[in-house]
Amino acid sequence: MMVSEERLRADIEANARFGALADVDGRGRTVLTGTEANELARDQFVDRLEDAGLEVRIDAVGNVVGRWDPPEADSTAPPVASGSHLDSVPVGGIFDGPLGVYAALEAVRAIQESDRSLGRPIDVVSFTEEEGQRFGNGLLGSSVATGRTTVDEALATEDDSGTVLEDALEHIGYRGSGRLDAAAWDAWLELHVEQGTKLERAGASAGVVTSITGITHCYVDVAGEADHAGSTPMGDRSDALAAASEIVLDVEDAANRIVVDDSPSAVATVGKASVSPNATNVIPGSVRLGVDVRDVEPESMEALVEALEESARRVEAERDVDVTVTRPYDIPPEPMAPRCRDAMLEAGTATGVETVRMHSGAAHDTMNVARVTDAGLLFAPSRGGLSHNPQEWTDWTDCARATAVLAETIARLADA
Amino acid sequence: MMVSEERLRADIEANARFGALADVDGRGRTVLTGTEANELARDQFVDRLEDAGLEVRIDAVGNVVGRWDPPEADSTAPPVASGSHLDSVPVGGIFDGPLGVYAALEAVRAIQESDRSLGRPIDVVSFTEEEGQRFGNGLLGSSVATGRTTVDEALATEDDSGTVLEDALEHIGYRGSGRLDAAAWDAWLELHVEQGTKLERAGASAGVVTSITGITHCYVDVAGEADHAGSTPMGDRSDALAAASEIVLDVEDAANRIVVDDSPSAVATVGKASVSPNATNVIPGSVRLGVDVRDVEPESMEALVEALEESARRVEAERDVDVTVTRPYDIPPEPMAPRCRDAMLEAGTATGVETVRMHSGAAHDTMNVARVTDAGLLFAPSRGGLSHNPQEWTDWTDCARATAVLAETIARLADA
Repeated sequence: MMVSEERLRADIEANARFGALADVDGRGRTVLTGTEANELARDQFVDRLEDAGLEVRIDAVGNVVGRWDPPEADSTAPPVASGSHLDSVPVGGIFDGPLGVYAALEAVRAIQESDRSLGRPIDVVSFTEEEGQRFGNGLLGSSVATGRTTVDEALATEDDSGTVLEDALEHIGYRGSGRLDAAAWDAWLELHVEQGTKLERAGASAGVVTSITGITHCYVDVAGEADHAGSTPMGDRSDALAAASEIVLDVEDAANRIVVDDSPSAVATVGKASVSPNATNVIPGSVRLGVDVRDVEPESMEALVEALEESARRVEAERDVDVTVTRPYDIPPEPMAPRCRDAMLEAGTATGVETVRMHSGAAHDTMNVARVTDAGLLFAPSRGGLSHNPQEWTDWTDCARATAVLAETIARLADA
Repeated sequence: MMVSEERLRADIEANARFGALADVDGRGRTVLTGTEANELARDQFVDRLEDAGLEVRIDAVGNVVGRWDPPEADSTAPPVASGSHLDSVPVGGIFDGPLGVYAALEAVRAIQESDRSLGRPIDVVSFTEEEGQRFGNGLLGSSVATGRTTVDEALATEDDSGTVLEDALEHIGYRGSGRLDAAAWDAWLELHVEQGTKLERAGASAGVVTSITGITHCYVDVAGEADHAGSTPMGDRSDALAAASEIVLDVEDAANRIVVDDSPSAVATVGKASVSPNATNVIPGSVRLGVDVRDVEPESMEALVEALEESARRVEAERDVDVTVTRPYDIPPEPMAPRCRDAMLEAGTATGVETVRMHSGAAHDTMNVARVTDAGLLFAPSRGGLSHNPQEWTDWTDCARATAVLAETIARLADA
């Protein structure tokens, strides 16, 4: 079975024209859901699916699926599905999403051209609005396909200007019907760029994900008192930024300790700090911190949130501030299905592509799909770990090697 | 000599109507330079000056001065001047500025009604754009009157919409001619609200300022690397916010130490922290801190800036970040003239008003005037230390008592 690097590259390069950015260092694109760039990208994908003889369906929230019924397969058997997404973040790169979509199609083409005989249909999928940059908070299409969000809820999601997803999809001709049901799949596989440097450092072309980390977001609201920076003596201050700074360092310190003592994959990030009134000559009256906690171990995530709450209590006790911690977002870690994971490792050996076992620190549609069927996630290397950025890059050879592993895995899982 | 609380209050209350805010908790006003509210406030001031028999001049940058030539005085002698400003911050209070303007006028009226005979003219002054909310960075009118800024520079200052001060003053009819020259004054006195709680705590009605603190602003630019919060292990991070947090705490710590060891009036504030990209799920790539350092002792200001720079070097050495410290704004401490200070202290005794010696942590027009002639600054209590805020309040009794001290001081300095 031979994956074509040339054909895969041509598809991804052609897709990269849609929403392409001039005047950036690298290869940038902005493809938000329901825009003209998104319409063109979808049209090309549908064309390529049909070129390969797949039967295309568009569901009610714009998820695109191409079904291939292999000659000897039982067309009623639960299919093996694979894909990713075509939308991007603003000023994103050309691989995040499209690689997984076109790798799945290339895998089907490679299987079609081989002498492999399959027992099940194959679905090639592009989920709607994975990035959550225009509608919702991310993973929207897979959320509907896995029953976490209803079709009606998804279609009613508004962008910043008040346009609902339904109208945006109608506008580009991708408001289809029915609901793609991921629970009907025998298995799901997604190839995605790593967005980290583990593969690059290991010199490997493919990473077999064993688990996707859980994600918790906490908000920390520190309330002090805004005062004149000149006429308020040091001893009379309720400085919300100084208090928040202690919490930032406590969170970092807790994560560093847990990495050493308990779970090397644990991370905690204070990514956001909004200071009010944020003027050089006014003592900060309030600060809101946004804290992101992730790990494959639920215990270490809880330990990190507990360390955050403890820091908040300590700072409140030691300084004249009020600190409130809320936890609006909490997704548990999602282990990948052993049979998918093992099939990918064996496929690596069979195709001669070096694979590395690793976890995923980023969320992917696979996180949703894993709750309703057996799911596997495969990574291709990201140069310098960069993503969501025109500097995002995966060498074409690595794209092809990872796609070879994906194709072999699909063929094995769908084996007659 | 009898100051009239009623007359003073009536002037300040009438002035408070201009730019008055409804629906605020307290007595709010917004009087930006060159607006209709500013025009009305100036018109009333000019009327009141003329009612008291003063001769009014408007200089090229809109500074308003009313000259009183006492009957026995040498009209060619350098005058004693007193006043403050009529502009406010957005959503400011009713005392910050107007108290000093109308107290100076009330002092003249009280002297006129007394049997005191003066040897010099008295100038009652309102400086243009003290707050620096629409044009420039503050103290603009006094900056021109003291030769720090030329008339042309000041008139060319633009607001956010590109309107220059000259046009804004023309528009309200206050683009006068000539330049008010503070160097020609024998002495200058300003009464202002304290904007702190020292007088309130001491139960005193007037504060005699011995020195106005110097002010330095530093910007600290921390450059790390923005990265994915999920896929970047703790050990691989260049987190600009964690680095900046150390600097915030180092600055606070240095100020606390200097307060105990060297100078109790020293303060340092990190009032501003701007984080980029400031998203919960992205490791902060850069942070800009705005640091405000003040003291009456130049040595402790230098020690605080040195502590900031040392912190920056330490953080740069210990973390994978670049830290740059710049110091775009630096005004040295300004001691008040001993003869003005002593006259105010004696005036307190003579009028039976308890006075407290103190420093000013805030900048005032007096800071500029003190460079060209003998200057004194008197404070009235601020309830709860609040200012720049509709909650700003000074009891009318305290206003009158502080005005009595001001009037007695003016009479002594202008004594025949």
